[in-house]
Amino acid sequence: MSELRRDPVSGAWVVLAPDRAKRPLDFAHEAPAPDRRDTCPFCPGHESETPPEIAAIREGGGWRLRVVPNRYPVLRTEEQLRTHSEGVLEARTGVGAHEVIIESPEHVRSLGALDVAQVGRVLGMCRARLLDLKRDGRLVYGLVFKNVGPRAGASLEHTHSQLIATPVVPERVQAEIDRCARHHRERGRCLQCDLVVQERMTGTRVVLETANFVALAPFASRAPFETHLVPKAHQSHFEGIDEAAIPELGEALRTAVRKIEKALDDPPYNLIFQSAPLGSPPMDSYHWRIEIIPRVVGVAGFELGTGFFINTVPPEEAADYLRTLKA
Amino acid sequence: MSELRRDPVSGAWVVLAPDRAKRPLDFAHEAPAPDRRDTCPFCPGHESETPPEIAAIREGGGWRLRVVPNRYPVLRTEEQLRTHSEGVLEARTGVGAHEVIIESPEHVRSLGALDVAQVGRVLGMCRARLLDLKRDGRLVYGLVFKNVGPRAGASLEHTHSQLIATPVVPERVQAEIDRCARHHRERGRCLQCDLVVQERMTGTRVVLETANFVALAPFASRAPFETHLVPKAHQSHFEGIDEAAIPELGEALRTAVRKIEKALDDPPYNLIFQSAPLGSPPMDSYHWRIEIIPRVVGVAGFELGTGFFINTVPPEEAADYLRTLKA
Repeated sequence: MSELRRDPVSGAWVVLAPDRAKRPLDFAHEAPAPDRRDTCPFCPGHESETPPEIAAIREGGGWRLRVVPNRYPVLRTEEQLRTHSEGVLEARTGVGAHEVIIESPEHVRSLGALDVAQVGRVLGMCRARLLDLKRDGRLVYGLVFKNVGPRAGASLEHTHSQLIATPVVPERVQAEIDRCARHHRERGRCLQCDLVVQERMTGTRVVLETANFVALAPFASRAPFETHLVPKAHQSHFEGIDEAAIPELGEALRTAVRKIEKALDDPPYNLIFQSAPLGSPPMDSYHWRIEIIPRVVGVAGFELGTGFFINTVPPEEAADYLRTLKA
Repeated sequence: MSELRRDPVSGAWVVLAPDRAKRPLDFAHEAPAPDRRDTCPFCPGHESETPPEIAAIREGGGWRLRVVPNRYPVLRTEEQLRTHSEGVLEARTGVGAHEVIIESPEHVRSLGALDVAQVGRVLGMCRARLLDLKRDGRLVYGLVFKNVGPRAGASLEHTHSQLIATPVVPERVQAEIDRCARHHRERGRCLQCDLVVQERMTGTRVVLETANFVALAPFASRAPFETHLVPKAHQSHFEGIDEAAIPELGEALRTAVRKIEKALDDPPYNLIFQSAPLGSPPMDSYHWRIEIIPRVVGVAGFELGTGFFINTVPPEEAADYLRTLKA
């Protein structure tokens, strides 16, 4: 028996269809990628293969972390912002930023392989880069994300995150902001704050909890073992996080990623930092989160056509299993 | 230099970034699937491996086309429609339909390999199934789609389409309907009718044209060589198509698919029939279309987080190339 569930924040429906897990597949999984460390542009010694450094953390003669512009940027800060429209069609020049955070000098494939202190450095650098880009008034929205494994969209395996800042607020993000604002108007409270209270009370979808953060298997999980990391106290912008809270967040994120990697045997995954638009002041109605989405099922015609996702693992079972795993 | 383009119908932004095509990829493409015709449940002789037939076209002792329930359905008509909510969370039982249209007795992998008459039969059957499901008042939305190749979500390679009918209108579809309704309120005309007029006048994104249909490379194409097939005359529901127009649509669809297959060397692709909700009467503001989306680029964290797509091939160049190809 399947169930339709709606995500309260995004409004998107998910079909929870545990029976689908039984279907046979004609096609094998992708082969593991060959190790490319000899030609990896992110490994020490190959620094000249990346564009000039934007920021770095150095220690004892070497670097621990580097931020560089993406060599093949989706958007560029050097462009002039121009809009043009023609009849019903509308376009803008591709003004924006596209940066790469090389998370370690070591050629490892996932954030889960870094030590706790290093994950904290990565998060601190994401915060610093967002605060810096915020000063450019043309950039109204910023997304920190991470692709691990080719099925999750990674083109290079050396562990890295990316930051793209755009001159428009994405339709999908605006729809979420509007839903949250409606809840706030009607109830006088933040929707995600309400959700965190409800989920902690129920407990069945809680994966782990620290003093200030909770990791949840979302009620309308789009993928098996999807996990969201949410601050318990209200905060709209990730970059608003107190520096003192970063090590705790780093440890929670690392633990959640490692549990998922153990449960699914090092799956491809995406990390997505959902945060309020760069250009907006702190908001009472929006609440940031980090999404971990294992990419063990593809996006097919049904998902593209409807925006629905089909998930075969109930989040209650996923949370139950992840809770017991040692990371 | 890249450009941000907005799709007038869906409201979604696309980043057109031709320079991204130059970046190196660590990972090889998926291996071609082994031929599975000996164990294929859709081949003649294996009819007992599918659930009982819903409809079929027979000729000269054999079948030309069969419709069967999906053996691993996402949704089922046998369920009772129940809604339950708990705090901010909302769910429904998975009532719906999930059918498979086996498009040919021959074990071919794409609609492009069928003859023109057979493509017409497939489209006629899609229409007939939608008209039948419309009678079930619980099913408010229906999507016909097709996954070709594992990267496009196909689990079986024998050419088939699918039909999923849902008890809710997807958020993504509703947003599109709302945008089109707004245009209609403001200008008194259908947005897609306006778009077809504008695109035929400009001509640069027209892939092919028949008496009643036009194939366009959309201004905000999400993928290289994306092509939309649109009726020139206003019509909100695909299933409202006149039976007499089906052979012409079949030929146009087959030609468009074959051109794309020639251009991209048999890529994985999805077909998606975007049509007004099953449960609604004919609408002045919405206009159906068939989308062909080659799946040559994956969905990564940026796409999941923002709903933006990144496309490296300008639709004007794609249309120009597709126009010249013999199919």
